[in-house]
Amino acid sequence: MVGYSLDDKSVDDLEKKGGKGVESLDELVKELPPPRVIWLMIPAGNPVEKVIGRLKPMLGKGDALIDGGNSYYKDSVRRAHSLSERGAHFLDVGVSGGVWGLTEGYCLTVGGEAPVVERLRPIFEALAPGGDRGWGHVGPSGAGHYVKMIHNGIEYGLMEAYAEGFAILREKEEFELDIAQIAEIWRNGSVIRSWLLDLTRDALEEDPDLASIAPYVEDTGEGRWTVAEAIDVDVAAPVITLSLLQRLRSRDEEDFSDRLLAAMRKRFGGHATRSATGPADCPSPGEGENGVESGGGTER
Amino acid sequence: MVGYSLDDKSVDDLEKKGGKGVESLDELVKELPPPRVIWLMIPAGNPVEKVIGRLKPMLGKGDALIDGGNSYYKDSVRRAHSLSERGAHFLDVGVSGGVWGLTEGYCLTVGGEAPVVERLRPIFEALAPGGDRGWGHVGPSGAGHYVKMIHNGIEYGLMEAYAEGFAILREKEEFELDIAQIAEIWRNGSVIRSWLLDLTRDALEEDPDLASIAPYVEDTGEGRWTVAEAIDVDVAAPVITLSLLQRLRSRDEEDFSDRLLAAMRKRFGGHATRSATGPADCPSPGEGENGVESGGGTER
Repeated sequence: MVGYSLDDKSVDDLEKKGGKGVESLDELVKELPPPRVIWLMIPAGNPVEKVIGRLKPMLGKGDALIDGGNSYYKDSVRRAHSLSERGAHFLDVGVSGGVWGLTEGYCLTVGGEAPVVERLRPIFEALAPGGDRGWGHVGPSGAGHYVKMIHNGIEYGLMEAYAEGFAILREKEEFELDIAQIAEIWRNGSVIRSWLLDLTRDALEEDPDLASIAPYVEDTGEGRWTVAEAIDVDVAAPVITLSLLQRLRSRDEEDFSDRLLAAMRKRFGGHATRSATGPADCPSPGEGENGVESGGGTER
Repeated sequence: MVGYSLDDKSVDDLEKKGGKGVESLDELVKELPPPRVIWLMIPAGNPVEKVIGRLKPMLGKGDALIDGGNSYYKDSVRRAHSLSERGAHFLDVGVSGGVWGLTEGYCLTVGGEAPVVERLRPIFEALAPGGDRGWGHVGPSGAGHYVKMIHNGIEYGLMEAYAEGFAILREKEEFELDIAQIAEIWRNGSVIRSWLLDLTRDALEEDPDLASIAPYVEDTGEGRWTVAEAIDVDVAAPVITLSLLQRLRSRDEEDFSDRLLAAMRKRFGGHATRSATGPADCPSPGEGENGVESGGGTER
């Protein structure tokens, strides 16, 4: 096995395990005997595009390139077609399992030509949770990343549902609920038991108030592609969509729409706004367009 | 063990297993030696209210009544208080696990006084998936049903997220995806693996098109209570809320709001509506309030 990475530590780790580290893509291709099998595990987008652009002229008939990242499926369809011009094959593999995959095995959905998938079966069997379990050839080029994209969309929805439920439990002061205890109870025998709940239990046991974690949720693209795709195939996916929007909201530090809502309420109802740097401003009587009195005016 | 049910078969089953079946609540109370422990497993609302009303005058100091149904938690708080007037105890137990609980054990969240919970520990240990696992005393009276209510709210969100994701996969015709195969792959090692996904796989393998199942989703109250509770404690729970609304929509056979949207589009843009009994009506030129031409007019 020959490995190349921008991260020297990864290359060192490979050499310690008996592999051969190289210092360039050219060297990588030279060291591998044809037909070559190259697995890319790099960030989606430009990094994948550039590396495939570099590799393509060096690859030949029967070589196979596997993209195990979260690439957009339409890019994968295009790349498979591009590599076929040189007689090389391309497989798009959706990989799930997070940092736990190393011990539990990775869940793999593979897209591409059936004979190539069959030829590379030993690789997938070695990475999956168990021989025939947890991996499969799901369709032609692009299908592997497509299925992984939808997996991540579902993941957004599941995460948001748990997060909302625990947030309600936490606010129910009269019962003084221990939400880490509840997560642990639910892990056993409940309808909502899941691996995500296992991880949620761990997080809540470690830090029940999550005081060390900022309320800022990133996304890496699959959620927004899922939403666009749902619209493209005319399927209403409101919960997955809203789960993405909640992430956008978590990152909206300016909160302009909330300021604007507060500003409107002040205009039509004389409702107090809060100063951006302190407590509530005084209400502005008579400023509402309907002449509503300040203070307890109802919204109209 | 003494049992009573409106369903004769349940009573027969109990007798076959060595229990004693009785034909009335009066007889049930008479047959049990004090301090009695009575477990109610009946539909929430009026049935529970009526049975507790019948039992209360017959119960005395030290007796314990357990409600294992999906009662509204505020009813449970009130009932605990009411039974305490006779020196009797009340525990509210949220029970999850569905029809599989009998083999896998039931997940139990118990609300009520700690000494009573401790005294009845053998019952909970016998029902739970394993001795100390899958059950717990989560708080005072009402807390057990409160936690179960939120459990069901989360459940709505999880179910909706999976349902939307599989619906998108199914519509992606160019890949001819086998969604039962994908569910099976995801069960092993993926981030979204869960017990609900196990059941989803079973359903899709049995009938991939779900042709025999009407798109009509019931709810039994916990979801709508969760939504009301979220608002009550000022927590935004948009995905759980929307999951409930999707169920309401699934049951809206008249679809009046969709008719009204179509009617508005016709008025302002001359867009064709479909006849309720057949294909699309002809567009009505000149009927739009802006005089937009019929046919391909954009929405304004």
